[in-house]
Amino acid sequence: MIVILHKNVTKAQKADIRAFLEDRGFQVREIVGEEEIIFGAVGKSRIDLRAVEVLEGVDKVIPISRPYKLASRELKKEDTIVQVGNIKIGGNRVGAIAGPCAVESRERMIDIAQAVAAAGAVMLRGGAFKPRTSPYAFQGLGEKGLMYLKEAGEKVGLPVTSEIVSTEYVDMMLDYVDVYQIGARNMQNFELLKAVGRTGRPVILKRGLAATIEEWLMAAEYLMAHGTDDVILCERGIRTFETYTRNTLDLSAILW
Amino acid sequence: MIVILHKNVTKAQKADIRAFLEDRGFQVREIVGEEEIIFGAVGKSRIDLRAVEVLEGVDKVIPISRPYKLASRELKKEDTIVQVGNIKIGGNRVGAIAGPCAVESRERMIDIAQAVAAAGAVMLRGGAFKPRTSPYAFQGLGEKGLMYLKEAGEKVGLPVTSEIVSTEYVDMMLDYVDVYQIGARNMQNFELLKAVGRTGRPVILKRGLAATIEEWLMAAEYLMAHGTDDVILCERGIRTFETYTRNTLDLSAILW
Amino acid sequence: MIVILHKNVTKAQKADIRAFLEDRGFQVREIVGEEEIIFGAVGKSRIDLRAVEVLEGVDKVIPISRPYKLASRELKKEDTIVQVGNIKIGGNRVGAIAGPCAVESRERMIDIAQAVAAAGAVMLRGGAFKPRTSPYAFQGLGEKGLMYLKEAGEKVGLPVTSEIVSTEYVDMMLDYVDVYQIGARNMQNFELLKAVGRTGRPVILKRGLAATIEEWLMAAEYLMAHGTDDVILCERGIRTFETYTRNTLDLSAILW
Amino acid sequence: MIVILHKNVTKAQKADIRAFLEDRGFQVREIVGEEEIIFGAVGKSRIDLRAVEVLEGVDKVIPISRPYKLASRELKKEDTIVQVGNIKIGGNRVGAIAGPCAVESRERMIDIAQAVAAAGAVMLRGGAFKPRTSPYAFQGLGEKGLMYLKEAGEKVGLPVTSEIVSTEYVDMMLDYVDVYQIGARNMQNFELLKAVGRTGRPVILKRGLAATIEEWLMAAEYLMAHGTDDVILCERGIRTFETYTRNTLDLSAILW
Repeated sequence: MIVILHKNVTKAQKADIRAFLEDRGFQVREIVGEEEIIFGAVGKSRIDLRAVEVLEGVDKVIPISRPYKLASRELKKEDTIVQVGNIKIGGNRVGAIAGPCAVESRERMIDIAQAVAAAGAVMLRGGAFKPRTSPYAFQGLGEKGLMYLKEAGEKVGLPVTSEIVSTEYVDMMLDYVDVYQIGARNMQNFELLKAVGRTGRPVILKRGLAATIEEWLMAAEYLMAHGTDDVILCERGIRTFETYTRNTLDLSAILW
Repeated sequence: MIVILHKNVTKAQKADIRAFLEDRGFQVREIVGEEEIIFGAVGKSRIDLRAVEVLEGVDKVIPISRPYKLASRELKKEDTIVQVGNIKIGGNRVGAIAGPCAVESRERMIDIAQAVAAAGAVMLRGGAFKPRTSPYAFQGLGEKGLMYLKEAGEKVGLPVTSEIVSTEYVDMMLDYVDVYQIGARNMQNFELLKAVGRTGRPVILKRGLAATIEEWLMAAEYLMAHGTDDVILCERGIRTFETYTRNTLDLSAILW
Repeated sequence: MIVILHKNVTKAQKADIRAFLEDRGFQVREIVGEEEIIFGAVGKSRIDLRAVEVLEGVDKVIPISRPYKLASRELKKEDTIVQVGNIKIGGNRVGAIAGPCAVESRERMIDIAQAVAAAGAVMLRGGAFKPRTSPYAFQGLGEKGLMYLKEAGEKVGLPVTSEIVSTEYVDMMLDYVDVYQIGARNMQNFELLKAVGRTGRPVILKRGLAATIEEWLMAAEYLMAHGTDDVILCERGIRTFETYTRNTLDLSAILW
Repeated sequence: MIVILHKNVTKAQKADIRAFLEDRGFQVREIVGEEEIIFGAVGKSRIDLRAVEVLEGVDKVIPISRPYKLASRELKKEDTIVQVGNIKIGGNRVGAIAGPCAVESRERMIDIAQAVAAAGAVMLRGGAFKPRTSPYAFQGLGEKGLMYLKEAGEKVGLPVTSEIVSTEYVDMMLDYVDVYQIGARNMQNFELLKAVGRTGRPVILKRGLAATIEEWLMAAEYLMAHGTDDVILCERGIRTFETYTRNTLDLSAILW
């Protein structure tokens, strides 16, 4: 990290800041310019930068390293390929996942599954728990919806995924879905991330509607830190001032 | 709602659209102009506008009514005053709620509580479950933190509030907090809203960092539709392009 | 437009609102529902909706028509193809326009032009007036830069474009550029739009960094209302909360 | 500035980067950590950071200093107070500036001026050139509007301000306004900033609707670098995703 000191920092303050950092395993180098005095602090430790920012004599702290580790390219250089049954997500072929927003009935689910398979999708989706903006909207069929989804997936030979909205459904859903889906509104529901991560099962993690790329990767880090290696990142558009479109697809996020 | 029809809508399509709306309890009036044809549909029903939007011959649907009811001024004209113990939130006096971000120890919690009470705050807060962006950051003391918080509150004679992060803690927290707090990242965790709403206890609902005022009021609607009358809305700043500040306080939201 | 009336609107107010609208050429239809009273007003007139919004008894006004005419698909259904010399922008072939951010010297400009032509671009660009965020940054070579640009374009047989930053350069630049370029920061510099529009020459209109699609099309409308038929819209990314990327490309804007 | 080097940077690359920086007057200190290698470069020079970013072996460049000088607190610690006639802007008293959006007629302007003066405002405003989103909206009375404004101001004893929208009006407006006003849409119309700055007259600089605080201060820097000492910053709300309000007032900007 880079610690920018106040221009009128005292010797005693500088000594305290240096000691604070060295105690926590950082190597500290001072750089004195005509306009600024800075400490460069490098090391493996990860500490809360705010603990440095509140020290007397500190003006600003600038992080250098990215805060994610398991989700970084530095730890794993090659592309991640997630294997679900006999399909692969993340290779050269773009795999479409399709299905109804909400599972409405057994018959309809099977009809749609057949259309989805015929169209060439690699996975079947269907919502059983619907996180609706309005409490008066249809909230989904619950476990019964998952049963229909699974049955339809087996009929057409496709793995299935469905959104999980609460930690209490983690175990129950293990019997029905091949891949958990975490929706945009729950991307920073950290309790849910921990509980789903612990299952070790693949997860589709949708980007929160105002989540930065860094926050999104940190949410993936949560999943990975708790046991899942297989995180499928789903860019679904972010919230901007534009109203002609519902979301703004952030295409450049894919490069990151 | 206002239904704007395609310019080349057929007679049969118009009849179908009209029938669809009337079947759902709407009164429909047609207005034909030189440049547009519209249906004005009024009535008490609340239907998913997207069901209308997909009908053949429909160009666009514009809602007229606000989607929230219990949280609206139309249902309750006077200001909401939430009574917690012997303090009131929502009246003429601005009530400050203060305390540590995270409860760290019993002694420290009591020290802070005394400072908070001395400074004139009306309620004590302290985090026991911390929804951290990083899985490697301190996640809070859990139930033990709540015990310290409650004890400190009793010592200084202040009601207490703490953030709830998962449905599984709803019952346990009933013993410790006077007011639940729902954080920005969980504002649209609808399962949590339902579970907390069912307790009937007062709730501080922080605005999501990219939530519109309407979505925020809809989250309040969730709480109210499930049993709570006492929702305290907390504007905590929204996410914008500005980086000099962490959040942009949306002062005008208070007027709404 | 749709005029939503206050619930307690008086008869006299309603009569006044109706008269106001009919005087301006609108046909007015009243729709009375259990929850709302609305006026649907249709007609060819274009008036400032705010003039209606301030009338006694009016709650809200919702526009129906888009505010742009010349820039709309309704007036011109087919795709716009802009002919510049013997190249076409807007047809099936995506045409790349390339060149240096700023023209730095005659030799360098010619070198780049040759590389640009060799790489298959259809037009050459180069900045002579640089709208820099900092007053201390290089502001461009001015007219001399345009001379180098034109010479380079002629050498490799490509039409050229350069950004115009002030109305005072409109006439001078006519001698040098085949296409004017209006930058993001000047997209709503309406005096510039009028002056450039009057030349009738093709214009590349970059989207403002926080401009809605509607505002962008209205800027095109300015150009067209003053004499240019050939507007090339350039989506260059909008400003969002994301900091990993400099701008967020709004891919969906292309569909609109 | 802080230059973060690639992990596999070569010795030769490091030497080149160091030479590049030292040639431009920077003192360079190297800091080698277990995870990163950085150069801290301090000095008075101001160079385009992108020139460093493109050097071989450089991963990222992080600025330390703010890019504005004349507009900074470091150069001028005390609060700026702008004197216009016998009124002061920037002291302890909040000074309201009021008047019609557009000057419509002589009589109306005088009526409004009297109301404005009676209400206690310290300056009179009125638009003569209106930068309208639509080319079909009233564009203002032009110079005649300025004449009415000046006359009204003199009648009630208040200084006046009006928006300038093009460099070509700078000289003419000198005769009519005590303070120039630069609108949000022209905040980064750098040619206009230069021309207005050269007059040395006070300027109200409205914040661009998607301008960061830094960009806004850089626009003030433009004015100051060209001759004006008296810049009045006007926070008028920024563009966000919220649609219930037209703009989001960024209250915290005032602290900066």
